[in-house]
Amino acid sequence: MRPGWACIHARMRSVDLNCDCGESYGAYVMGDDAAMLEIVTSANVACGFHGGDPEVMAHTFALAKEKGVAVGAHPGFPDVWGFGRRRLPFSAAEIERLVAYQIGAAQALAAYAGHRITHVKPHGALSNIAAEEAEIARAIARATKIVDPQLVFLAIAGTQLERAGAEAGLAVAREIFADRGYGEDGQLLPRGQDGAVLHDPRVIAARVLKMVEESAVISASGKRLPTQIDSICVHGDTPGAVAIAIAVRKELVAAGLALRAFAKAR
Amino acid sequence: MRPGWACIHARMRSVDLNCDCGESYGAYVMGDDAAMLEIVTSANVACGFHGGDPEVMAHTFALAKEKGVAVGAHPGFPDVWGFGRRRLPFSAAEIERLVAYQIGAAQALAAYAGHRITHVKPHGALSNIAAEEAEIARAIARATKIVDPQLVFLAIAGTQLERAGAEAGLAVAREIFADRGYGEDGQLLPRGQDGAVLHDPRVIAARVLKMVEESAVISASGKRLPTQIDSICVHGDTPGAVAIAIAVRKELVAAGLALRAFAKAR
Amino acid sequence: MRPGWACIHARMRSVDLNCDCGESYGAYVMGDDAAMLEIVTSANVACGFHGGDPEVMAHTFALAKEKGVAVGAHPGFPDVWGFGRRRLPFSAAEIERLVAYQIGAAQALAAYAGHRITHVKPHGALSNIAAEEAEIARAIARATKIVDPQLVFLAIAGTQLERAGAEAGLAVAREIFADRGYGEDGQLLPRGQDGAVLHDPRVIAARVLKMVEESAVISASGKRLPTQIDSICVHGDTPGAVAIAIAVRKELVAAGLALRAFAKAR
Amino acid sequence: MRPGWACIHARMRSVDLNCDCGESYGAYVMGDDAAMLEIVTSANVACGFHGGDPEVMAHTFALAKEKGVAVGAHPGFPDVWGFGRRRLPFSAAEIERLVAYQIGAAQALAAYAGHRITHVKPHGALSNIAAEEAEIARAIARATKIVDPQLVFLAIAGTQLERAGAEAGLAVAREIFADRGYGEDGQLLPRGQDGAVLHDPRVIAARVLKMVEESAVISASGKRLPTQIDSICVHGDTPGAVAIAIAVRKELVAAGLALRAFAKAR
Repeated sequence: MRPGWACIHARMRSVDLNCDCGESYGAYVMGDDAAMLEIVTSANVACGFHGGDPEVMAHTFALAKEKGVAVGAHPGFPDVWGFGRRRLPFSAAEIERLVAYQIGAAQALAAYAGHRITHVKPHGALSNIAAEEAEIARAIARATKIVDPQLVFLAIAGTQLERAGAEAGLAVAREIFADRGYGEDGQLLPRGQDGAVLHDPRVIAARVLKMVEESAVISASGKRLPTQIDSICVHGDTPGAVAIAIAVRKELVAAGLALRAFAKAR
Repeated sequence: MRPGWACIHARMRSVDLNCDCGESYGAYVMGDDAAMLEIVTSANVACGFHGGDPEVMAHTFALAKEKGVAVGAHPGFPDVWGFGRRRLPFSAAEIERLVAYQIGAAQALAAYAGHRITHVKPHGALSNIAAEEAEIARAIARATKIVDPQLVFLAIAGTQLERAGAEAGLAVAREIFADRGYGEDGQLLPRGQDGAVLHDPRVIAARVLKMVEESAVISASGKRLPTQIDSICVHGDTPGAVAIAIAVRKELVAAGLALRAFAKAR
Repeated sequence: MRPGWACIHARMRSVDLNCDCGESYGAYVMGDDAAMLEIVTSANVACGFHGGDPEVMAHTFALAKEKGVAVGAHPGFPDVWGFGRRRLPFSAAEIERLVAYQIGAAQALAAYAGHRITHVKPHGALSNIAAEEAEIARAIARATKIVDPQLVFLAIAGTQLERAGAEAGLAVAREIFADRGYGEDGQLLPRGQDGAVLHDPRVIAARVLKMVEESAVISASGKRLPTQIDSICVHGDTPGAVAIAIAVRKELVAAGLALRAFAKAR
Repeated sequence: MRPGWACIHARMRSVDLNCDCGESYGAYVMGDDAAMLEIVTSANVACGFHGGDPEVMAHTFALAKEKGVAVGAHPGFPDVWGFGRRRLPFSAAEIERLVAYQIGAAQALAAYAGHRITHVKPHGALSNIAAEEAEIARAIARATKIVDPQLVFLAIAGTQLERAGAEAGLAVAREIFADRGYGEDGQLLPRGQDGAVLHDPRVIAARVLKMVEESAVISASGKRLPTQIDSICVHGDTPGAVAIAIAVRKELVAAGLALRAFAKAR
């Protein structure tokens, strides 16, 4: 793909909006999937290890299908209690198999709902570790490729995940976070630090649009870090999540951008 | 497939030997997979719900591949503590999704090991319920078909599972149990009843050969119940299991039968 | 205890208000414990099998201690996914040990928070089965007695639980449900049936007061079934739960009743 | 306790032999508890988090009671799959509550079997971390003390566990490992290193007797590190485990030592 004008233009005209979905577990409800699936273009669906269960998965895939939302597998550590947020000491080889298992399970339940998994994005602590550690990122990329080489690897822009996906020869979609502040090195500011989490929907929406239009991550300090931006991650499980997602969507649409799942563009 | 002489002859000349494998869980060992995979032609591999874990699954698929043993998904109830032997009160719809999930996970880990799932056989209490209840048997058959319509449905001969697989349009392989006694109705004698479980390898082997040669289940009382026999189930997790499996294999081979996975014959 | 006037009078003047608490699980929130612990006088705290975890338990015991709320163990089936609502096929003997385990765990974490378990009340499907089956009710009573014979057995009035507690020589507290309709036999109307679940806080509060004042369960049809009423169960995990609990409390207080944990009265 | 002759003499004349028990899980068998309970004087019983379940626990306590073996709670990380051998990233505060929960559960099931928990010894990765990290060791000691200050804290001699137990004011019993080699610093040689694991029952038995008689850990290089030795840990889940335990017991008895649970001596 030549990075010429047409291409940049095409990229400017379309972007994906993704969020985690299907993270409820039995009677325990997490997030407002029905609302979020009206807003996003791609849903990362939990696979039963950190959240989700076969009932929730099948229901989420069916709802996404109905709403025209693309779906991805969202594998996590096997830790419902910790919601996949604990950094469990699994080896890269163990993670490779954990991830393959979850993608396969998600494929089957997506098929069950008449839908099809088109991307993979790791969850929580698994994603955090993989963003930092090349070996873990590669394990996830390998697992993805072995299960289905057509899957798009949805990676946090500028991390080991992005690199590992490209190395593996997977199509990589780069995402930015709508509501998280960035440092000058392009990494997320640690939670707890001032500016690490944004709350005002208008501020968030304007910042997202600016990053997409400039094709760059913009740090809290204002530094511009160029990157391809294929997707914007919005959250579904925090207070005000739905309002933020709506604001982001409206801002992008008002600016003339088409919201479209990256996976479908291929 | 015309039920002519050639066909019956071909059936007589080849039979499959299947056993459950990959039912260890972390540090907990169940059965002697390495020994059994030298003997059988098809392995039903646990999918992590009643036993097995991604590590055990990947290892079992790799070993089966190495030994030339065909592999199937062996879904069970989500109950490691009960080893899938408790009759959990899930609805048919819930079971359909539980089974689809497990087949998908098994496909992914088989792919990981360079192998391919070619059949499905339910485990323990799930199998027992499905053998009796048409609605549950149909749920398992539907889940199998949706995930991959090419999968062979390995069913206990003469049960609702056999019927459900045929109704769903799946290729059905009919199995008999090497070491279990049958009533005059063709159903297994309840455990605890005299003759319900056979222990003598020579008696077991001779009986299996007789059933295969006569293409009939033979009850404890001597009654002959004609059925197609595509596979013989031997156990891997009971005392003397390996010795029984070896005896059965030897007897069949000595009688001129080829041992061959049914799934490969298609 | 002679059932004379003084005794009846004392009973009329004081009643307990109980609800299930501590049923969150990691990141998954269930109910509004902080609000409910401002209203009730006894909390049935989940023990980690159907909900709750050591963190949630310790937090709930500490909060109950701070609010002066008595605490009980609320054992359930080992089924977080099913939230203890599936009727798992455990034997009475297995249930006895499951319950003992959970009471012991709750005692330790209550001690940890400087509080003390003073009653036991089974949860969900375990409670439903025990209400109907004497053998299961007796298993729960035996487990309670062996762990601590001073524990009060909080039982649904008119059920096998009430009988089993009395037979075991445990102090029994009889509860009615604030928001559930009763049949003429004193049993709960099955969910789904008209009048099975009440929603209007004013209707619920008035009905509760009437039952407490008349010392009788009053069926949906108006039939009066005399029973000792030591406690009123309000729910914390349904929409409008907090509003209902507040209405019940206000109505009882306005009528001159003291709200007091039965366990403390002993 | 004055370290005079009488005391030393008494210590020389009696020692405890402990092993982990009750680590089976449903159909999964771990170790040979029946054999080990004929040999040891104290059993560390798994509490359901890394192994064990209420059935196994109740059975183990009953068997220990029958054989006159003292019992302790053997809490581990919540990780049946990893058998408690993964170093899970729980905070000291979380570990404190995890441990309290498990001790309470064990107390209840011991009571159920007419027995009584008299000591606590952490398992696997939890023990390894606590041996090294004072904060974790203190958390376990605090949990033990809050649940029952009479419990003996069974600690690896020379570790943070020993220090934390003493600081908490608990009675501390110091143990050495029968089949593990020690470095000159008194710490266990890392597995994999030459001499880290001993296999010959006669060598093991002679070494244990020497350490007990000299009241010192003796390193692989022959260095003598004085310590009080109250108990000897033998394993039940390794090949040859039973033979080693028998050899150690015989050697100690032949030398005139009484084998007696430390907990009973108090």
